[in-house]
Amino acid sequence: MNIQEKIHTLFEPKSVAIVGASRSIGKWGFTFLLHLVKGGFKGDIYPVNPTMDVLLGKKVFKSLSDIPGPVDVAYILLPPGQVAQTVSECGRLGIPACVVITAGFRELGPGGQKLENEVADAAERAGVAMVGPNCAGITSPRPMGLYCMMQPNFPPPGNLAMVSQSGNLAGSLQHMCWKQDIGISRCVSVGNQARLTTEDFLEYLIEDDQSKVVLAYIESVSDGRRFMEVSRRLTRKKPFVVLKGGKTETGGRAARSHTGALAGSDGVFEAMCRQCGIIRADDLEDMFEVAVALLSQPLPENNRVGIIANGGGWGVIMADACSRAGLDVASLSEETLKSLDERLPPWWNRQNPVDLVAGMSRGAFFKSMEILCRTDEIGSLIALGYGYGKPFSDLIKTLPEDNGMNPLEYVKNAIHSDQRGMDFILNIIEKYRKPVLLCSEYGVGVDKDENTPILELRRKNILSCPSAVRTASILSRLAEYGKYRLQQG
Amino acid sequence: MNIQEKIHTLFEPKSVAIVGASRSIGKWGFTFLLHLVKGGFKGDIYPVNPTMDVLLGKKVFKSLSDIPGPVDVAYILLPPGQVAQTVSECGRLGIPACVVITAGFRELGPGGQKLENEVADAAERAGVAMVGPNCAGITSPRPMGLYCMMQPNFPPPGNLAMVSQSGNLAGSLQHMCWKQDIGISRCVSVGNQARLTTEDFLEYLIEDDQSKVVLAYIESVSDGRRFMEVSRRLTRKKPFVVLKGGKTETGGRAARSHTGALAGSDGVFEAMCRQCGIIRADDLEDMFEVAVALLSQPLPENNRVGIIANGGGWGVIMADACSRAGLDVASLSEETLKSLDERLPPWWNRQNPVDLVAGMSRGAFFKSMEILCRTDEIGSLIALGYGYGKPFSDLIKTLPEDNGMNPLEYVKNAIHSDQRGMDFILNIIEKYRKPVLLCSEYGVGVDKDENTPILELRRKNILSCPSAVRTASILSRLAEYGKYRLQQG
Repeated sequence: MNIQEKIHTLFEPKSVAIVGASRSIGKWGFTFLLHLVKGGFKGDIYPVNPTMDVLLGKKVFKSLSDIPGPVDVAYILLPPGQVAQTVSECGRLGIPACVVITAGFRELGPGGQKLENEVADAAERAGVAMVGPNCAGITSPRPMGLYCMMQPNFPPPGNLAMVSQSGNLAGSLQHMCWKQDIGISRCVSVGNQARLTTEDFLEYLIEDDQSKVVLAYIESVSDGRRFMEVSRRLTRKKPFVVLKGGKTETGGRAARSHTGALAGSDGVFEAMCRQCGIIRADDLEDMFEVAVALLSQPLPENNRVGIIANGGGWGVIMADACSRAGLDVASLSEETLKSLDERLPPWWNRQNPVDLVAGMSRGAFFKSMEILCRTDEIGSLIALGYGYGKPFSDLIKTLPEDNGMNPLEYVKNAIHSDQRGMDFILNIIEKYRKPVLLCSEYGVGVDKDENTPILELRRKNILSCPSAVRTASILSRLAEYGKYRLQQG
Repeated sequence: MNIQEKIHTLFEPKSVAIVGASRSIGKWGFTFLLHLVKGGFKGDIYPVNPTMDVLLGKKVFKSLSDIPGPVDVAYILLPPGQVAQTVSECGRLGIPACVVITAGFRELGPGGQKLENEVADAAERAGVAMVGPNCAGITSPRPMGLYCMMQPNFPPPGNLAMVSQSGNLAGSLQHMCWKQDIGISRCVSVGNQARLTTEDFLEYLIEDDQSKVVLAYIESVSDGRRFMEVSRRLTRKKPFVVLKGGKTETGGRAARSHTGALAGSDGVFEAMCRQCGIIRADDLEDMFEVAVALLSQPLPENNRVGIIANGGGWGVIMADACSRAGLDVASLSEETLKSLDERLPPWWNRQNPVDLVAGMSRGAFFKSMEILCRTDEIGSLIALGYGYGKPFSDLIKTLPEDNGMNPLEYVKNAIHSDQRGMDFILNIIEKYRKPVLLCSEYGVGVDKDENTPILELRRKNILSCPSAVRTASILSRLAEYGKYRLQQG
């Protein structure tokens, strides 16, 4: 097996050993086994610990060599001093890959660096592909149901991949995905990268069909040339979003004590990103939101944005936000204005943002969206206020059936119209191949069992962002990447 | 009654008439009555419509003059041409205040302006304090349970006040509050401000004890001198956060078609804000988050921030974000480092951000928070990752009681420890009078019936923000306002 085949095994193992399994709740040797079991891993699970027989319903083996079947990946959770010998043992037993969770290496200074070198040498000699040390594990829901990470997060299968130089940011991203029904393809915490590096995994993700958008949290790039070469190949096939830790001097100092890495100048990194078509994110939430937009939205072909508002204030704020994000709030032609005239009351504002005036019918909202999307005057659309029907129908539902007002009929129509609205949004994205971003407060604080169109769209990777500034900022990065892809041909 | 007394009546009416009540679901004449009734208004409700007898369980009156008891406030939802005469009638009947919801005035151009002048003149002659026209109503949960607005939002009573030149932003803010259990004191949509202006309401809020933080959405300031005078008095007593619409040329153009207002230069407005201690917000979500922090947090006495991270990556990102937001990620003295040494393992990073290393006990988390808060070296604290215990205990709960692992005992301790953690956070804020901001992904996608510490803290106005950039940005504005207040003495 070459390196890339071994990485494939790390994501799709048929069997996993947990070396250093523990029955103490709170110890990582317990946690990893628990997550692997509870995540529903479809392969064989082999806990290894010389002092017990059964753990979480699984037979425990005294040592790696006692395991009867082949082991694809060994997760190592032993004390630092025992890691090198275990890695060597993996090699002797023909285990192609291991993940070293154990910390206490390079990040602690010279003594740790020496120990880490021993582990890395052992892996090299043994021909074992090694992740870590000081890492938080791997998630790959499809095909094996692999959730073998430090944090208890079980995002559904999907198309978002993440390579992270921080285990806790990898966990946090998966938490955001899990709680919002956004699917993950692969996630790996690379730790100290003593053997397998960020670039190795990025290279794998270029050809990985499951992964449609690739994310990375990066504190340092050890081989700038390879990083650029891999990034260029990656961004030609799929969007690549990077969150860089240590952009400032203060952050850089923190990064040094985190992974022992030298963060380097942000100016240099920024230039690298621009050359390679890398999309930059400001923090984890930002990376998540940009990524989800990239999963579901076509890339804009230009910088011109149309805005539809269900009331003036939001439209004004969004026009400000787009303008500041470098987007062009498009001027509409007389022809387009006339098409809108047919759908809107005579006193509509006749400009972009198109203000539908509070209380306009859903029909006008959707018709206006389509009128804008079908012109060349805009390359993307932001629709404000979608989702407003639900709170009102919830209230109407509580009314008695008297006075001939027929509240249930109203609610039925409202639900039908919400459903049609969702289909409509999905359809126009597909039909005109232009991104349609939603911005409203209606996704905030909504419970998962509420049957709202906002949540249904979220399950299709269309977020409704409550912030105008963030919505504009997401769209501007889609537009930048769209431009890069056009230039690359 | 003087103007301020009439404004008080608008917020605390004993009786409300809805002139133009309707039984058509979807018409504002129906919606306002519905919200007033469903909101649980404690005073008398008088729907007015010549064509019906009962509506939503309330007796309907043929005209304002048919109402037997005194009317404190009349909401007017009649066609534009009938508004002036109704306002005059209010005067004749001794109704001190009215709210004109009806649109179709100044925002439509010269013809509308003329009609609006007639309405304003009628109000002046009649001595009726008038809100609007073209406004979305008023919310004031305490003491009367008044929810008389366009949008179906029922935030709990609380201490956030908002004056808005956009009805839909006023509604959206209340939706955010409602869905996240953040309380409102007063909210008024001022519409075209033909009589009562933003400044009139701001003046009222200076002395309003219910309102502890004041928000305004502003597109234009018609009387700059008065605005500054009122703002200065306001910010000396309580924080005042302004979201300005029309900051850019594009946004300004949108604002002109929204309320017919001239937005003016943002540079001038920015200077005004700086002179008056006004805190600026970037969009509605930002205003909401800054406001909630101001409700619950003391003001920092300086720019120096301590950061506690439950893992390295988050600490690095937060250090970057603070640094970029103009905060000083404080250097810690040898004495403070030694105090932390006693609580943390020998390999901790010995700097700020304090990285507790994944998996550290809750005890260390809280002890470290206190050690930082009690030194003069920091003026504020950001704690990352609080809330991580809940997802893991949820998983542990599912384990059978075998293997002597005692999962239920673990869960009991974890819940107890979460509860203690909450009390601890509230206590140190109180004890050291320093803001403690929480940043983690654990509030995202949480259902309201989940019993998480994140939600309990939110009910005490302590948000856990999933974004490092936003957390730092909120804190920097608290620090700026703190500085202003210190300078004012």
